[in-house]
Amino acid sequence: MTPTKDDIQKAYNQIRSHIRKTPILEISGNAFGTNQPIQLKLEMLQHAGSFKPRGAFFNLLSRQVPQAGVAAASGGNHGAAVAYAAAQLGIKAKIFVPEIASPSKIERIKSYGADILVQGDRYADSLELCTAYQQKTGAIGLHAYDGFHTICGQGTLGLELENQTGDDLPDTLLVAVGGGGLISGIASWFSRFSQKGHIKIIGVEPDKASALAQALEQGQPVDVPVSGVAADSLGAKRTGEMVFEIAKNKIERVITLPDDAIIAAQRTLWNDYRLACEAGGATAFAALLSGAYKPAPNERVGVILCGSNIELEKLADIAST
Amino acid sequence: MTPTKDDIQKAYNQIRSHIRKTPILEISGNAFGTNQPIQLKLEMLQHAGSFKPRGAFFNLLSRQVPQAGVAAASGGNHGAAVAYAAAQLGIKAKIFVPEIASPSKIERIKSYGADILVQGDRYADSLELCTAYQQKTGAIGLHAYDGFHTICGQGTLGLELENQTGDDLPDTLLVAVGGGGLISGIASWFSRFSQKGHIKIIGVEPDKASALAQALEQGQPVDVPVSGVAADSLGAKRTGEMVFEIAKNKIERVITLPDDAIIAAQRTLWNDYRLACEAGGATAFAALLSGAYKPAPNERVGVILCGSNIELEKLADIAST
Repeated sequence: MTPTKDDIQKAYNQIRSHIRKTPILEISGNAFGTNQPIQLKLEMLQHAGSFKPRGAFFNLLSRQVPQAGVAAASGGNHGAAVAYAAAQLGIKAKIFVPEIASPSKIERIKSYGADILVQGDRYADSLELCTAYQQKTGAIGLHAYDGFHTICGQGTLGLELENQTGDDLPDTLLVAVGGGGLISGIASWFSRFSQKGHIKIIGVEPDKASALAQALEQGQPVDVPVSGVAADSLGAKRTGEMVFEIAKNKIERVITLPDDAIIAAQRTLWNDYRLACEAGGATAFAALLSGAYKPAPNERVGVILCGSNIELEKLADIAST
Repeated sequence: MTPTKDDIQKAYNQIRSHIRKTPILEISGNAFGTNQPIQLKLEMLQHAGSFKPRGAFFNLLSRQVPQAGVAAASGGNHGAAVAYAAAQLGIKAKIFVPEIASPSKIERIKSYGADILVQGDRYADSLELCTAYQQKTGAIGLHAYDGFHTICGQGTLGLELENQTGDDLPDTLLVAVGGGGLISGIASWFSRFSQKGHIKIIGVEPDKASALAQALEQGQPVDVPVSGVAADSLGAKRTGEMVFEIAKNKIERVITLPDDAIIAAQRTLWNDYRLACEAGGATAFAALLSGAYKPAPNERVGVILCGSNIELEKLADIAST
């Protein structure tokens, strides 16, 4: 069962009072080879610094949540989003985080009032602890990307973009891919087979974390090695089954990029546009900036900037080099 | 001669292809005492990192510019804006900067291709050198705030806000004040005596650089001492004559704030909203965050975030304390 436009509309109706309608900045397309403006969707201004509260809220608002609440294993944007949404809804949240997680992300999760357990060397250790906790307490889990409610929630970003742009809807939309929850949600909204809202959806992955590109190449989800600058947000080891079903039918193609193209995008977004993005949040823009995606002369391109959870000291280093 | 709505409309028609239409982020007003959303106008995403290119473009597009081009004395947002606008229009620009100016701002001005002279200890030295240069070469000057074209250009921000918000126009608009070019332009557009577009315009100044508040108190522009965290952008020693004429008739009042309220606003804008503002750019928001301006329960408040030219290392220090 994959999400329909109706499912996504219902999700939006439920979550809209809890999320920020993030604005669009139009920039000149001349430097990128098109005479149409580029639409930057500033989703990194969302609560908790990424798009992920959309899916987290829809899960928590539409599923039965027991007294034990919700549990998640993630020291990154997923954990922060679950902690934020749970706090807003008065739901108990327990977040499992490996010891390698950055202190600033741990602080952020704590600041939302979640109970956090920092233990174990790797993400897999946190996941194991989280699963045991869920079995013991009855707390529900919430898939970071490959769940119906998660995909519906992330798909509301497509709906919102269509509402905002109206007749100026982009011809092409560039979307960063980790596990694939965001792009499959957006592609479900803008199905290429629908008559209205036709739009070309293009995924962008780091070449060091290319779970969706490799799945599409091999005809099924496969385990891939994960490393590189965007690993903490886009570093899924394997794309989801539901994500894959949607992607193989509704996504135009996936572009993969080297790390230096992603870092260059972060640098330009700050220096020229005053937008602060983490590596994963700048990856879609990197496809345009590097020339890996070349628009046609009259093409209208939209770019989702999807995350801003970066230490400013780190961005300072990137911007000044 | 003070600007009319017509003058500002004409200015907008001339500059619109050269400036970014900066977006509005709506945030919940609950934390600030109103059940209406707060509208943050993200003008710090403008070219060159502040609102000032609006006035700079209108000056350069509507005045006679000789072969010698334009000259300005400023190591700050005005200098960057003049350098940027001149470069875009193929006009020669010479910018005079004192040696205390930050290396990053000097770099930015250079990056726009302007000829820059770093000499002298204080701003007054740069101004003297600039004046001599203008007299010798015939290059035109461009007032940072107290000029008809400058005020018209900055006033386009009010026009743009009205176009963007339509029926949801704020009841009250908070605007940071340095020399007063921005607030007098906006107040000219939203004249309290006009029938349409009625809106309450409130100025916000650091208490360590309060040229407009003191002028209004004393009934005329007066020299004031200037210091504090926002001195590099809001630190005008004396408000302008034209600015004062407009302000005394069209501005509701001016709020003054201590430096720590401004720093707290920068911290919150980054931590909770992922917006990077320099001190002057966060000053209007500080009036709301500190409670110095308390909205009525149903009041719709707009806030202009007007500058982002801050070193990220410095913002990192502010955000983490």
